[in-house]
Amino acid sequence: MSFKEKGLLVVLSGPSGVGKGTVCRALRSRGTDLQYSISVTTRAPRAGEQEGVHYFFKSKEAFKKMIEEKKLLEWAEYVGNYYGTPIDYVKQTLDQGQDVILEIEVQGALQVKKNFPEGTFIFLAPPSLSELKNRIQGRGTETLDLIENRLKVAKDEIDMMKYYDYVVENDQVEKACDRIEAIVTAEHCKRERLVEKYKKLLEVE
Amino acid sequence: MSFKEKGLLVVLSGPSGVGKGTVCRALRSRGTDLQYSISVTTRAPRAGEQEGVHYFFKSKEAFKKMIEEKKLLEWAEYVGNYYGTPIDYVKQTLDQGQDVILEIEVQGALQVKKNFPEGTFIFLAPPSLSELKNRIQGRGTETLDLIENRLKVAKDEIDMMKYYDYVVENDQVEKACDRIEAIVTAEHCKRERLVEKYKKLLEVE
Repeated sequence: MSFKEKGLLVVLSGPSGVGKGTVCRALRSRGTDLQYSISVTTRAPRAGEQEGVHYFFKSKEAFKKMIEEKKLLEWAEYVGNYYGTPIDYVKQTLDQGQDVILEIEVQGALQVKKNFPEGTFIFLAPPSLSELKNRIQGRGTETLDLIENRLKVAKDEIDMMKYYDYVVENDQVEKACDRIEAIVTAEHCKRERLVEKYKKLLEVE
Repeated sequence: MSFKEKGLLVVLSGPSGVGKGTVCRALRSRGTDLQYSISVTTRAPRAGEQEGVHYFFKSKEAFKKMIEEKKLLEWAEYVGNYYGTPIDYVKQTLDQGQDVILEIEVQGALQVKKNFPEGTFIFLAPPSLSELKNRIQGRGTETLDLIENRLKVAKDEIDMMKYYDYVVENDQVEKACDRIEAIVTAEHCKRERLVEKYKKLLEVE
């Protein structure tokens, strides 16, 4: 019996403006073995965009049918168009032993968590969180309102982390990429995965 | 309030002969930021060995007192001498924010697991496990007894893994080191650790 280890679904998320896109592009340019998920969308293809490469293009009707049939890991509407992550595509890719990375807003990540809890959920955190204390204490120039607002934002961000497995501080893009790659490597070394692999290897009797 | 993140206790273990010592020496030569634990022993110092550098040297009486007072994470007797890992030294090092690595036999690792379950337990697995199936199926030259013996050893090894968090295959020393370093990085990104850090940073009100 041949045994192919299943891929990991890695969900990279975090507050808007934290630099998810930049980190994902940097990871891609490293040539890591992470497959980027392809979204389904109802918007019209732009020049040069190819079906099944950049997006899966669908009518609104077809998209709504996918929602009803629970064929999407997550979906959202932006300026009149729908965008979503197709379950079948992701599962097929994982079954081929390929890791898949999904770069996504927090709300979408929570939907994925519900539909695919076995994913690896990484929260990209703004470096400002670590710097916050120094910034607040070090400068006498900031108003109390501004300080309180920053603290509130920081607390909300920390509160969001509870749904995630890992927190990666985006202090430097390359360091953040190193940490994400390390998490993927470590997840592949998790005992449950390896024991499964060995047990299948021993099915020779 | 200043906040120092606590270090990780990394326990590297595995069946005898798997190459724990070789992997540990390779990690050390990389200059990684892992502190090697210093053992307590009742054997006499050899030429050049320094107290608190190579070992903590103790009388048998003092060692037995440490056992009674539960001052050892694990201990064992080899050829008439006692060897053990001092809890206080490990905890002080962790409190300084320093990661500690312990290279140890399976029986010792199980004792550490009991006394310090929050450690990161890595099982170093022989590459023969993965190769086993090919070796058994591919060669007609091996006797049934030999095959059955190998299967039994493999099953016992897999059974040992259940107490560990990670399994690292020692197929190549450098690859095994990469995986161990990745595990340490990933463990530092675990959400619980980071949320704790951020919460302490916000204690500025």
